[in-house]
Amino acid sequence: MTRGRRPGQVSSREAVLRAAREEFSRKGYDAATVRAIAAQAGVDPAMINHHFGTKVQLFMAALELPVDPKEHVLAILDGPSNGIGERLLTRFLTVWDSSAGKAGVAVLRTAMQHEWSASLVREFIVNRAISPLLTGLGVPADEAAWRGNLVASQLSGLILTRYLIKLEPLASAPHAVVVHALAPTIQRYLTGPVGTAQDPRE
Amino acid sequence: MTRGRRPGQVSSREAVLRAAREEFSRKGYDAATVRAIAAQAGVDPAMINHHFGTKVQLFMAALELPVDPKEHVLAILDGPSNGIGERLLTRFLTVWDSSAGKAGVAVLRTAMQHEWSASLVREFIVNRAISPLLTGLGVPADEAAWRGNLVASQLSGLILTRYLIKLEPLASAPHAVVVHALAPTIQRYLTGPVGTAQDPRE
Repeated sequence: MTRGRRPGQVSSREAVLRAAREEFSRKGYDAATVRAIAAQAGVDPAMINHHFGTKVQLFMAALELPVDPKEHVLAILDGPSNGIGERLLTRFLTVWDSSAGKAGVAVLRTAMQHEWSASLVREFIVNRAISPLLTGLGVPADEAAWRGNLVASQLSGLILTRYLIKLEPLASAPHAVVVHALAPTIQRYLTGPVGTAQDPRE
Repeated sequence: MTRGRRPGQVSSREAVLRAAREEFSRKGYDAATVRAIAAQAGVDPAMINHHFGTKVQLFMAALELPVDPKEHVLAILDGPSNGIGERLLTRFLTVWDSSAGKAGVAVLRTAMQHEWSASLVREFIVNRAISPLLTGLGVPADEAAWRGNLVASQLSGLILTRYLIKLEPLASAPHAVVVHALAPTIQRYLTGPVGTAQDPRE
């Protein structure tokens, strides 16, 4: 189920996604253009806009990231706020253990070394997943960036150790076990005492 | 202070380290040989054994990792066990914010995408830093791997977000601020309730 699969006929959609992966990898997000991706895929740029939407949406499709992060955020927010760490981690593990997660790991592994990917990862993690969550939780704006960073520090390390480096026993641990161990951390970073980015005493 | 610095005369030591970085990067840890590194540096293999010791020690020198991780572990262990999270993080930040840390970040960025580096990173983190710490703390052997993984999940994410992705405000936050926010996490992973790798209820 990796993207090495190559049927006899490659659909336009697949050709676009393949071209997008190459263009984003080679030029970075900012320099990559939908026009160049269209040219490489042999399709009209209007077809890309029609089928994928914006450049960001095309990027997410190319990386096989979960199609609708907003949906996950809403589901995580749905429930008592003292259970947010548990709900976030449960869903996080479900997504990352799925085939989308496997594709994401492959992309991360390749992308990690390039400076451009740093801004992509930053943008995705903060703007598309964690910020909406913090806003939904009602975290004041002046705390959101700091709390979001802390959550990112634990979740990115979880991706790294469980899915990339594959530390054992963490890599094979059942969801409930990982949730039990990490949920208090995520919960505290989101709603507990963490100081501020300027001063450890809040 | 990056390794771009290039004096008029390159010492044998520098030549060996440079050759080692190239050889390890190109072939991976297992396939790299001290003989090939010596040939590339134009020195006798015996000189490398004499000055650097084992291949692992040469590898660590090439990556500019802290020369003696054992020393750090001993310093971290020196004090009450309920302050271990704080002492570990304080020292961790000091090392990673130093010039050795900057070199380490550069190496990590390059290495991250290769499968071989996964085992190197795993070996270094677990065997050379976290395991001795857990042993020193008196953590039972059957808990050590799980607790070590959890510590690695937070610390590797801290490296990723603060030093590689450079999330703000985390990347610029003073040590005391980061320690205050993360120490309870590290403390719990080392000595608090975390379940086991098989069962969330310990």
